[in-house]
Parts: sequence; C-alpha cells; structure tokens
Amino acid sequence: MSENRTEISSVGEFGLIEHLTANIELKNASSLVGVGDDAAVIDHFGRQTVVTTDLLIEDVHFDLMYTPLQHLGYKSVVVNLSDVYAMNATPTQITLSIGISNRFSVEALDEFYEGVYAACDAYGVDLIGGDTASSKKGFIISVTAIGEVAPDRFVKRSTAQKGDLLCCSGDLGAAYLGLIFLEREKKIFLENPQVKADLEGEKYVIGRLLKPEARKDIVEFFQQSGILPTSMMDISDGLSSEILHICRQSGLGVVLYEDKIPIAEETRNAAFKFEMDPTACALSGGEDYELLFTIAQQDYDKLVLNEQISVIGYMTEPEKGTKIITKGGNSFDITAQGWNAFASK
Amino acid sequence: MSENRTEISSVGEFGLIEHLTANIELKNASSLVGVGDDAAVIDHFGRQTVVTTDLLIEDVHFDLMYTPLQHLGYKSVVVNLSDVYAMNATPTQITLSIGISNRFSVEALDEFYEGVYAACDAYGVDLIGGDTASSKKGFIISVTAIGEVAPDRFVKRSTAQKGDLLCCSGDLGAAYLGLIFLEREKKIFLENPQVKADLEGEKYVIGRLLKPEARKDIVEFFQQSGILPTSMMDISDGLSSEILHICRQSGLGVVLYEDKIPIAEETRNAAFKFEMDPTACALSGGEDYELLFTIAQQDYDKLVLNEQISVIGYMTEPEKGTKIITKGGNSFDITAQGWNAFASK
Repeated sequence: MSENRTEISSVGEFGLIEHLTANIELKNASSLVGVGDDAAVIDHFGRQTVVTTDLLIEDVHFDLMYTPLQHLGYKSVVVNLSDVYAMNATPTQITLSIGISNRFSVEALDEFYEGVYAACDAYGVDLIGGDTASSKKGFIISVTAIGEVAPDRFVKRSTAQKGDLLCCSGDLGAAYLGLIFLEREKKIFLENPQVKADLEGEKYVIGRLLKPEARKDIVEFFQQSGILPTSMMDISDGLSSEILHICRQSGLGVVLYEDKIPIAEETRNAAFKFEMDPTACALSGGEDYELLFTIAQQDYDKLVLNEQISVIGYMTEPEKGTKIITKGGNSFDITAQGWNAFASK
Repeated sequence: MSENRTEISSVGEFGLIEHLTANIELKNASSLVGVGDDAAVIDHFGRQTVVTTDLLIEDVHFDLMYTPLQHLGYKSVVVNLSDVYAMNATPTQITLSIGISNRFSVEALDEFYEGVYAACDAYGVDLIGGDTASSKKGFIISVTAIGEVAPDRFVKRSTAQKGDLLCCSGDLGAAYLGLIFLEREKKIFLENPQVKADLEGEKYVIGRLLKPEARKDIVEFFQQSGILPTSMMDISDGLSSEILHICRQSGLGVVLYEDKIPIAEETRNAAFKFEMDPTACALSGGEDYELLFTIAQQDYDKLVLNEQISVIGYMTEPEKGTKIITKGGNSFDITAQGWNAFASK
C-alpha cells in the first residue's frame, strides 16, 4: 500500500464515487448511460441479454492477509464473467457494489479498482453502475455481469444428451493447492513473523488462486469452429460437484475417466509436497473457473486438436449412475465431495 | 418468528436455494432462463435495458430490532425498482444476493423472501438469479434490478433545461420521522424492556419507513399523459441533496418554494411532537422514494390535475444559484444538509 493515506470521510461518498469512476471509458456502443445516474441503460438489437451476480465477503471468500487488493478486484470481475461465458455468451457490462469499513483508505480502494478496470479492459466490458456503502466490519463485494448472446445460442446446464462427450477446458485442482499453500504460509507467519515465505516454487498454483482468468478463448473457439455445446457451466466448486449438477439437471448419468482429468505438472508437484491426491484436488478443489461442457459425438473432430480442451468422459442414461473409473480400473460413485469418495472406499 | 427452526446447515447451500426459489413463476415472456443456471437470459425486441444495483448492510442500512424481515425483503426490492422508475423505465427482472450468518434460520429467511416475492408480485418483476453466501456477522443484501424502456424515452438527471418546472411526487419527510420514532422506542426499550411501545399514533410515518413503495403509478401517468420529463431521479437521500444533483449535473440553478413542498398532516404532527421542523425533515430526511423531476413549462397543464404531483419550483441559469424561498419570504442557499442551512443562518 502507498504511503499517502486519504481518509474516505475526507472526500465524501459522492466524491469517492467520482474519484473511483473518473477514468471510465465506455467501450461498447450499447452502454448508453453508465455510472452517475440512478440506473444504467443498455441498448439491444435483437440480441439476448445474460445477467449474473456474485457476492464476495471478506474472511469468507477471501483473506486480505494474502490477497493483494488489485488481484481481488480482478478476480471479483472474472468470476462473474466466467458465469457469462458459461452460458456461451459474451460479457458486455458489469455493475459493482462495495461495502467498506473505515479501515480502508482511498489508496487501498484505488488498488482494488485498478484490478477491476484491468479485468474490464482484458475482457472488453464496461463498468456501468454500482453502489458504495459503508460496512461495520469487513469488505463486501457484489458484482453483476451482463452479457449478450445471439438468439437461441445460449447454453444451459440441463440440456446434455445421452452419449454426449463430457469435456473441460484448461487444467484443474491448481487453485485449491494455491489456497492450501497460502493458508499454510499464513499460519507459519502468524506463529513466527520473522520467517519469510518462499513462494517461488508454487507460483503457478498461487497464481491460479489469486488471479484466475475466465475462458473467453474457449467460447470464441466454439463460435469459430461451429460448435454449440449441448450443456455448459463453469467449474467454481470442484469438478465432481459440477458434473453432478449437469447430470441432475439434464436427468442423465455419466462416466468420468480419472486419467483424462487435466492436471498441470506444477499442480501434481504441489499436491505431492502436501501429501495429497492430485485427482482429489481436481474433483473437490474449486475456484478453477474452467468450463465444463458436453458436445455431441459428431463434434469431436472439431475440437480434438485444441490443446486447451480435454474429453474426460461421456453422458449415460440415468440408471447407469454417476461413475468415475480410476486409473486402476475401479469404478466409484462420484459424490459432491470427491475427496471423501476416495477416502471412504 | 415461527417456532420451528430449521438450521441452514441442515439443508445445504443448494437445498436452501431450491427451497427459497421453488415457488418462482416467471411472469415476463422475456425471462427465458431464471434461477438455477450460471446466469439468467433476457430477451429483447429493440427495447433498451436499464440496470441498477444496491447493497444493504445490517446496522448500516437497517436495524433488525425494529425491522420485520418481511418488510425488509419488500423494501430491498422496492428501493431498486424506484431507481428503474427514476429512469422513466419499467422494471422487469431482479437478481438478489444475500450474505447470512448462522444466526438466521430457514424460517427467518422465508419471511424475508415472502417480502421479496410480495414486491415482485406488486410490481410485476421476476427474480431471475442471485447468490447466497455466508457472512461472519450481520445480514447483507444486494439487489440488481433490470428494466426496459422504449428507445430514447429514458430520462437522465443531467438534461433539465432553464425555465423547466421542478416537481415531486407524493409527500416528503415521513420516512425520516418514522426512523426517529423507532430509534427513540428502541432506546426506551433497551433501557426498560417492560415498557410497551405505543406505535398507533405514528403508523403513517413508520409505514413510510418500513414499507416504502416505488412510484410505478407516476411513470405510467407520464406515458398516458404524453409527458416526457426533462430530468428525473428518485428521492432517497433527502430533497435538497437530490435537487443539488439535478442542478449540478444539468449545469443549472434552481428556485425552490418551501410552502410548495408536499408534507403529509401526519408527518407535520410527528415533527411537532419531536420539536422538529417538518420542512427540514423533507429537505434532509431521505428514504422517501418519491420521484423528483423537471418538465417543460408547456407540459404544466398535463399534470396540474394529478394530486400526486406537486410543482415545487423552477430551474434557473446557474449564476442565480440554488435557492429556497421560505414561507417568510427569505431566500437561502440550498445545501446538501438543508437542516444545517436553516440552523446556521
């Protein structure tokens, strides 16, 4: 944090909003009215609008002891955009409300908003409104993201078909190991503030936790390749929980292959360091913000060459249940706590 | 609160969401996808979309000691819809996120949502999404409202013209006196829990605080009467603060007549009981959720017969300043704390 400290009380609420929003440049022609009025106005031209919202609360969703405010601002936006992409839509606007105690300075909020604007730039979205409230204690963040999608191109969770291939983007389990690592370092620091954390070796997993990206590229790839997934959602709560959502909402079963789950080398190494099972981290870890989706079998050729996409299983009739086939060839039920599934059998 | 108590932990997050949203019936044909997916989808047909959001935090924006949860749910929606109407738009959808500690039971949340759904019904809007998070302490509410408006019919704060008439709906100052009254009763109760509050005489002002309504009727009247206000906003922070917003954003001055400010008989009586100036309550009180707007002089005939609308002043060139003419004929500067303006001169 900077040495200058301007008290929020010294600029007042409207002054603060003006200060924080002075540099907004609206990028979308559809953003007719942004910050500074009772509400924002968006223009549409026969397109469909997608809206999603998330509430993030200090010490529940994030720990400011090891989360730089700039990263927190970036992530607060990205996790919402991820939900828009998960509908096969393109995010266009966000609103952002924050609740802050007088523990925060204007400079601290500047850092937070720097991250917010960096995410808006990276994904081409406009911040078009919000609310700033005082909180008694703790930092509260509420983001609503709005997106567009051509009529009937949006993709729900409930429309997977029997025989469809189950796929995911990127790699899984890293963010959870980043969290485990930072929590351990925090504990060590609290016990002995002289010890300096050595984060070098865990750069990848920590980066995946603190600065996740939404899979804009995957949704663009779908469009370029003429792929319309039959169902899709983002992976925020761990792979097994999300697979069960798609199965339940589509009324289907699934076969998932453990050896097909994409896990980065750095994630495997971090897991082994903590004596954890990398597969369990991917199944139950959460916060990866990759996309989980199903495609018709005949679309397989269209995505087989994309190294950012892995086919990890296929959808079955509901009677077959929701199964994971382990590397050893055993079949287990997938549970929302994939972790426990392994531990208890 | 009901005698039954179901712990939130016993139903789980998804169970809770299903429980709370099981009875939603989508009313607008444009609500293609509601609760239960990553994001909601809204269809548009060449109309413009309005989005607004508010964050409400326990013990900052509301006190559960004297705010029934049902009223709180109703008000959380209404204050956002008020912002949509203030754009001359019609609200169509809301998203609602809440942060709750384990101090709340499912039954308590049911009461809150009862109020939310009552407001949705009363104003014809659909709840289409949201997020439920746990909070360490206190109740946190974030509502985003979305509305529609025909192209180029939305009304900003910054477009008032010199000579326009300044108008407001309903009556002002009551909600603030309701707050003063409930805060006094709370203090008495905390000092002596045996004393039973006598709220009968203050029903009107308490009702205005706890269960405000948004001025749907006024926006409908504009449409029926062929009136397009030249600027508009809702009165949430007190009349003087809002007038100064319109003046500043439109680059104009104003003359406001104290004797034209609409104040209900019940509000006057409550003010005198507390030895307060009713005008000061209207100027600085806040939470009235009436509409403040300007119209061209030639539209005067169109609204003169509407008893829910008062003409309270007119817009001037900026050099004339922002003035209030008192009942005694004196002229004072309007300040954001109208209260202090009277006290200090």
